[in-house]
Amino acid sequence: MTHVLTAGLSHILRLRCVRCDAEYPTDSGHLICPACGRDGILDVEFDYAAIAERLTRESLAANPDTTHWRYAPLMPLVNPERRPPLAVGGSPLYSCPRLAAELGVNEILIKDDGLNPTASLKDRASSVGVAKALEAGATVITCASTGNAASSLAGAAASVGMEAHIFVPARAPEAKVAQLLVFGAKVYVVEGTYEDAFELSMACAERLGWYNRNSGINPYLVEGKKTVGLEIAEQCGWQPPDWVFASVGDGCSIYGLWKGLWEAEQLGLSHRVPRLIGVQAAGAAPIVEAAHSESDLVPIAAETLADSICVGTPRNWRKALNAVAESDGKWLTVTDDEILDAMRVLGARAGVFGEPAGVTAFAGAVKAAKMGLIGSNDRVCAVVSGNGLKDVVNAIRATGQARRVPPDIEAVMKIVRP
Amino acid sequence: MTHVLTAGLSHILRLRCVRCDAEYPTDSGHLICPACGRDGILDVEFDYAAIAERLTRESLAANPDTTHWRYAPLMPLVNPERRPPLAVGGSPLYSCPRLAAELGVNEILIKDDGLNPTASLKDRASSVGVAKALEAGATVITCASTGNAASSLAGAAASVGMEAHIFVPARAPEAKVAQLLVFGAKVYVVEGTYEDAFELSMACAERLGWYNRNSGINPYLVEGKKTVGLEIAEQCGWQPPDWVFASVGDGCSIYGLWKGLWEAEQLGLSHRVPRLIGVQAAGAAPIVEAAHSESDLVPIAAETLADSICVGTPRNWRKALNAVAESDGKWLTVTDDEILDAMRVLGARAGVFGEPAGVTAFAGAVKAAKMGLIGSNDRVCAVVSGNGLKDVVNAIRATGQARRVPPDIEAVMKIVRP
Repeated sequence: MTHVLTAGLSHILRLRCVRCDAEYPTDSGHLICPACGRDGILDVEFDYAAIAERLTRESLAANPDTTHWRYAPLMPLVNPERRPPLAVGGSPLYSCPRLAAELGVNEILIKDDGLNPTASLKDRASSVGVAKALEAGATVITCASTGNAASSLAGAAASVGMEAHIFVPARAPEAKVAQLLVFGAKVYVVEGTYEDAFELSMACAERLGWYNRNSGINPYLVEGKKTVGLEIAEQCGWQPPDWVFASVGDGCSIYGLWKGLWEAEQLGLSHRVPRLIGVQAAGAAPIVEAAHSESDLVPIAAETLADSICVGTPRNWRKALNAVAESDGKWLTVTDDEILDAMRVLGARAGVFGEPAGVTAFAGAVKAAKMGLIGSNDRVCAVVSGNGLKDVVNAIRATGQARRVPPDIEAVMKIVRP
Repeated sequence: MTHVLTAGLSHILRLRCVRCDAEYPTDSGHLICPACGRDGILDVEFDYAAIAERLTRESLAANPDTTHWRYAPLMPLVNPERRPPLAVGGSPLYSCPRLAAELGVNEILIKDDGLNPTASLKDRASSVGVAKALEAGATVITCASTGNAASSLAGAAASVGMEAHIFVPARAPEAKVAQLLVFGAKVYVVEGTYEDAFELSMACAERLGWYNRNSGINPYLVEGKKTVGLEIAEQCGWQPPDWVFASVGDGCSIYGLWKGLWEAEQLGLSHRVPRLIGVQAAGAAPIVEAAHSESDLVPIAAETLADSICVGTPRNWRKALNAVAESDGKWLTVTDDEILDAMRVLGARAGVFGEPAGVTAFAGAVKAAKMGLIGSNDRVCAVVSGNGLKDVVNAIRATGQARRVPPDIEAVMKIVRP
């Protein structure tokens, strides 16, 4: 890494509360706004003028680092060299002409973030979270998660020898829990909801001084997630698409996506910020409801097979609403059946296997095409946020079981050439 | 891609039978040696003098393509531009100092090939196989597989709109079968062994003219697999380690690994070829048996939880034995318990989650360290050939179930601070 801007945090101006707009100095040590409590999520504000002098199209083109640390000058770290070694980011962006033709759009780009080290976009956040924990001198880190934040945290913590205590709701798919255990994390399967798991993790962090990697609380995780937006812009040759679709649960990821796309424009790298479409599962759509009713979020009892976005009390709804509004974007819901359809279509047409929440953004793109929201002139991107191998039960629900045959060629020929 | 050597196959000298040494011209269209039949697997021989003029350390350093197509001048393709779009290769190579200290070696490098598009090393082979099928004008492709070759073929075929007919033995884990179905392949779960599935696939290829991607038959797949060896050499700054450990089932992958490492030396890129250690599961070790008895392979009834290397009648045992012998290497077996141990250690120390066959090479490295076969001066690499998410049942067997807790902080505190 020869592209690190500074040692220290001089490239950061301040932390700002997204609720009351209060400002705090970078070194204040706050994770949330002391005035607003948990609703007062902080946002990191950077000195883009200074960063733009060092981070240019040319410097990036010359940087051989393909991980998300290529954007280290935009990371909130004192020393970006001290970080988990896992190769996060640099996931492929595929242009899929056959899919574009079927949807009737100019181009469709699939960003396969299921190809991260622990197989989800959350690796971007955990990578930065563990780096911040190292910076804070922490030896123990905790989070609650429906699954992907947890497995990414467990992997990143294992890679640096940090102890991870992880609280997952009972509904988390077993593949995700198995990942945690293989990574050596201390795992607590909470007999309750995501919200119950979240409260336990928060209480342990407070009582025991564990570093808190809950993404509805910790402001630094978004700074990892934003690299998906920076990558999309860079992989398009800094000519971002017209629309970017993202699945939404807690609201953090779409805000991170927007921030990366926005920063690319702020730094003069891209010429514009794409319009974002936030997509929630129909049974877990409190943010879409808040957007459409133009009111504060009302928690619901969430129900969808897309476990990663099955969140009834999203923590980061303000950031999510702001991101979509700033981009002049829209909100959509898709049904569970539309999600399973999207899984099959994306697999069979693009060779990309996403988990249900992972293909929810693409399901939204399919729906938007049917609704005429996007059309033949549009370049469209959908982010696949997690790998389908994380949730095989729902993959089988999407495809049905395979045909069994006896070991007899004539029996097979009857099927192939009936 | 600006680094393609030639259109046409002028960079290939001939095909040579590994059994009888007969030579065939490149354009002969043979997949196997007509004289030897199925035992006569062919090997592609390249014109390295010509290739070395174009493929240099400098040309590679300047090549922004991080996929395995950066080695296109070493690929057996008429037109390397016509290929599946999935981003195969470029998987990370991690140096793990804590693991090295535990094993008592100088350095241990983990090559995480589970981070390929469909989550295994086999993507390297299928990518080239589908490119060759496109070249041959095929619209249908077939293979038999214990799982990973199948899912990689299904993904690559889907990405170019080719029809894939895939035969899997009944023991294939459901995650791998789910992948096939999501990718839209025609799947036949054969009520029998891998060998039964293989025979059905061969018969269909013969009767119906389907392109044959069986890796014990098709000589071109190794040319994809070899890129894992080329990558290891390049990622080490062309200073390859002393030893490279590889898990072995059919024998194709270790031959590919060796060929890539050997080609790096042939081309003057590396200064040496590492010694290879082939590792088989104790219950599925006919190649190790053949090596130790210095005789031809005797088929066995294979039994191991590492399904990807549970092969009793390996097709490519000659190539595997030759590769290890050429490198002055060795053969080892590990028990299923040692494989599960290796899964936990690699997860908890390195943050890398491999499937059972995927961690078998690392299990071999642990055993070799205990035996004193490798020591404190040695730089050692282990290839992780498949992602642990492909076989969650065995991951849970390795870790046990997670602890369940009620949603009550005091209950949690009793566990954390008993």
